[in-house]
Order: sequence, then C-alpha cells, then structure tokens
Amino acid sequence: MSSKTVVIGGGTGNFSILTGLKMYKPLALTAIVSMMDDGGSTGILRSEFGILPPGDVRQCMVALSEESELIQRLFQYRFNGSIGEHSFGNLFHLALSRITGSEEDAILEMSKILKISGDVIPVTLENVCLKAMLEDGTLISGESNIDLPKHNPNLKIDRLFIEPPANPNPKALRAIKEAEYIIISPGDLFTSTLPNFLVKGISDAIYASRATLIYVCNLMTKHGETTNFTASDHIRVIHEYLGHPLIDTVIVNKKAPPPKMAKEYAAEKSFPVEYDIESIYAEGVNTVIESNVMSQKTLIRHDPMKISWELIKIVQEQRSSNV
Amino acid sequence: MSSKTVVIGGGTGNFSILTGLKMYKPLALTAIVSMMDDGGSTGILRSEFGILPPGDVRQCMVALSEESELIQRLFQYRFNGSIGEHSFGNLFHLALSRITGSEEDAILEMSKILKISGDVIPVTLENVCLKAMLEDGTLISGESNIDLPKHNPNLKIDRLFIEPPANPNPKALRAIKEAEYIIISPGDLFTSTLPNFLVKGISDAIYASRATLIYVCNLMTKHGETTNFTASDHIRVIHEYLGHPLIDTVIVNKKAPPPKMAKEYAAEKSFPVEYDIESIYAEGVNTVIESNVMSQKTLIRHDPMKISWELIKIVQEQRSSNV
Repeated sequence: MSSKTVVIGGGTGNFSILTGLKMYKPLALTAIVSMMDDGGSTGILRSEFGILPPGDVRQCMVALSEESELIQRLFQYRFNGSIGEHSFGNLFHLALSRITGSEEDAILEMSKILKISGDVIPVTLENVCLKAMLEDGTLISGESNIDLPKHNPNLKIDRLFIEPPANPNPKALRAIKEAEYIIISPGDLFTSTLPNFLVKGISDAIYASRATLIYVCNLMTKHGETTNFTASDHIRVIHEYLGHPLIDTVIVNKKAPPPKMAKEYAAEKSFPVEYDIESIYAEGVNTVIESNVMSQKTLIRHDPMKISWELIKIVQEQRSSNV
Repeated sequence: MSSKTVVIGGGTGNFSILTGLKMYKPLALTAIVSMMDDGGSTGILRSEFGILPPGDVRQCMVALSEESELIQRLFQYRFNGSIGEHSFGNLFHLALSRITGSEEDAILEMSKILKISGDVIPVTLENVCLKAMLEDGTLISGESNIDLPKHNPNLKIDRLFIEPPANPNPKALRAIKEAEYIIISPGDLFTSTLPNFLVKGISDAIYASRATLIYVCNLMTKHGETTNFTASDHIRVIHEYLGHPLIDTVIVNKKAPPPKMAKEYAAEKSFPVEYDIESIYAEGVNTVIESNVMSQKTLIRHDPMKISWELIKIVQEQRSSNV
C-alpha cells in the first residue's frame, strides 16, 4: 500500500522535493500550495484577470508531471515582448479557468494534460492578501513587498497575517487528515511556508493529524525575513504559527556551499543556516538528520535526489518497523 | 486502403472541410495551408517574433484534432487585456517553436499534443509577403491590406504575387504527388486560395499529379476581391494561376441564404455566387454538383457535414467503380 504524503509549502522548495519524491512509487503525493504570491507574471494575472495565483501551482504540476520533458519545458517557458513576461503555464491556467469558469476545474484539467502523479491543491480558493507587521509597527501589504523586501530589512517581522481571513480548501483539510507523512518543504519562511498555516483550520488539521511531521530546513538565511536565523529559529517560528510543537523530524544540511557561491550569496546578505542541535531538540523535535542535501548547480538549492533520498529513508524505516 | 486526400486553402474554408472529412475513416487527410496571413494576432507574432503565421495552421489542427472538445476550445481561446488578442493556440505555437528551435518541429509536436488525424503542412517554410497589383497599377503589400481591403474596392486585382519568391515545403510536394484527391477548399480567393499556387512548384505538382481535382466554390462574393464573380469566374482565375484547366469537379451551392442574412451580407457588398453552368463547363470542368451545402448558423458558411457528404460521395462512387 502506498503511504499518503503531503508536501506543504510554496515556491522552488516544493519543486525540488516533489521532483525527487515522484520517482518513489510507494508514496501517494499531495502538494498543498500557498496562494499568496502576487509578484511578477502571477501578480499581473491576479490583478488584471482576477484568477488565483497560478505560479506555484504550475511549478508543482510540472514537478509531478509524467509528460515528456518537452511539455515540462513548455509549461515553464517564459514569453517576452508585447505579450509580457508570462510563463506559458500561467497563460494556460488563465485560459483554462476562463473556459471552464472554475479555478478548481482548471487545475483538474491541467493535472490531466500534464499527467501528474499526485494531486496539487491550493491551500485556499479565496483571494487573500498577505500582510506583515514589523517590530516597529510598520504594516507591509502584499507577498512580493514582504519578499523583496521593500521595507527596512533590519526590522524583524513581528506578526504575519492574511486579509480577509481565508477558509481552507476542503481538499487540503482532507489530505492532511489522511496523511501518514506531512513534509514542510524549504522555502521563504514568511512568504512561502508560513502563509499556509494562516489559512483557517490548516494548523488545527495538522495538530489533529496522526502524520509524522517532517521539516526540511532552509539552506540559507534570507535578508529581511530570516536574518541571522538558525535552524531552531526556523522551527520555533513554525511552531508558533502551528500553535503547537509538532515537528517530529528535521533535515538539516551539513555541507558548506562552495566558497565562490557563498560569497555571491553573502553579497545579498544571505548566509548558510547554522544548525544548533541542542536548541532544535529543545523545540520538541525527536530526530535531527544531518546530511549533505545541497545541489552542486549554479544556485544554492536542495538537490531533488539527495533530499528525497533522506525522506524516503524515513518512510522505509517506518514501513519496515511496522511489519 | 485509405484514399490519400489533400485539402488545400487557408482560413475558415479549410476548417469546415476538414472538420467534416475527418469523420470519414477511409480518407487519409493532408491539409496544405497558405502561409501569407499577416493580420491580427498572427501578424503581430510574425513581425515581433519572426515565426511563420500560426493562425491557419492552428485552425486546421483543431479541425483534425481527436482530442477532447475542451482542448479544442482551449486552442481557439483568445486572450485580451495586456496580453494582447492572441489565441492560445498561436502562443502555443510560438512557445514550441522557441523551445524546439524549429517551426517544423513545433508543428509536429503540436500535432502530437492535439492528436490530429492527418497532417497539416505549411505550403512553404519561408517568410513571404503577398502582394497585389490593381488594374490601375497600384501595388498593395501584405495579405491583410488586400483582404480588408484598404484599397479602392472598385478596382480589380490584376496580378497577385509573392516576394521574395518562395520555395515549396517538400512535404507539400510529396503530399500532392501521392494524392488521389485534391480538394481546393472555399475561402477568400486572392488571400487564402491563390497564394498557395504562387509558391514555386505547387501548380506544377498539381499538374503532374494523377489526383482528381475538386473545387468547393465560395458561397458569397467578397467586395474588393471577387466583386460580381460568378462560379466560372472563380474557376477561370484558379486555372490561370494553376497554369492549366485542371479542375475536374466543382461543388456549387444551390440554396439561397435566408433573406435576413443575405441583407446583412449585402450591406457589406457581399452577394451569393451565381453558378453559370455553361460557362463552368466551358472552363473544362467535367462535373458540376449542385447541392445545398450551406450552414444554418449565424454566418454564411459551408456546413461541415453537408459539404463533406458531397465530397465523400465522389470518393465512394470512384471507389466502387474501381472495384
């Protein structure tokens, strides 16, 4: 029997995890995707045509697609010139939602066309705006404004919330309820990960779930969002928004990035996330897996094969201990 | 064995014929498509991105598609707003030709994705401009300028040509050579039909072919292109550009359009094409089929089922007389 596994997050973190995990047949995958993105092509399509943000949904679909590499490249292809810098997949989403008259149907049809192995579920089907209150009381409105950041990056984010309050997608609640594993994928903490937990009922559903909660910790800090954050800081903040110390297992990266790459990131005030084992356990975590899960490519990212292998080992060990 | 059938033309005429004929399994269909369109979305994509005109290719593909109705509607869906009034199919073509780096590969991939029953072949793969010399010596440049028409519509088109001279797509030559039936579909005579015969070698290939040449005559005249043209006028001009009196069979429409519709067309100086049987035979035609082949919908168009039934009857009769 396959193990029901939910991957929750947004952005490229979800993409890496799903790309790796889809190779492993014993997992039945569901990606729950944050719906707060309002930058770039996605932002234009949201404001001009009133559709749900298509970008992260598209990324997850492509990650889970069993279609030819050409079709996958097509969906990520970005136009330019008078058409605007829209990805083909985003325009596909727009056209399908116009023809079917429903965002859900559009996602369903896109899943069929891309032959995805799994489900991609928007965390909410409502149109919401992500907001952040900084420690000095300044209010930042909109995911892309928090993400860039356009605010003084030396000020910490004191509180993250969404307006108006959003109801959860019932399919997201069901997937969480039925899951054996819930993986919080890496990604921008305040703009990709936490927004999922701001949707009504999601944190409660994770609390009520019997699933093993695994967190794949970020590789690098992000200036203005997670300045100086250690691994335990990431976990502490996630627990805060979940309402309970629920993370069972954390995967941290133990290999330093190549010096040249580290220097480029340092210029953006982005540094490797230190893992402070004692403090991680103090957050209530049961297992910390230290591994080299970094990609050797041009950006500091999780390697889909390496990270999924660590995740699969967790599943395999539990399956064999349950025999 | 299936009968190899080539449908040659452009625009909505091809669409009607192919939509009907694809239902009939004993035909192996190839659409040869004019590549001179430079109006609307197609014109913008041609001039900005340097691709071959995608509009007519897309129409034929959708007509021959065995995919779901939703996918067919998707390909015809037209965007608006800041994206521009591009059809989804045209942007699909653009993205595919950018990714594959080849117009031919793009068309091939699109055929696979749309699961088309048959082949769609651009008459040329070269970038050409359609030009018309009017009877007073005025030169009109560009398909859409001739089509609209932007010139004095009381002046006849004296000579149609393309610049630069274009080499044929070898696949078009092969399809014509192997055909048992060649159908010239209805459509704007000077801007959709004749441009095919201006490509080097196409008329000669039709002359050399052993195929039965069938012409589905237009239903209505077009002001500025075929003002006052009878059926035999259409045939005479086609023969002129083919270089020989090659049409074997002509299908003309015998039912008048509903008065309300006729009035609307009359306001655009468009009138039913009169069929002058004696003059048609004088052009060397062997058979004239008079039939009600008009659609009952909002525009005066060939009904795909009625017109394809007439065509299928021709094939069936020849097949049974060959037994």
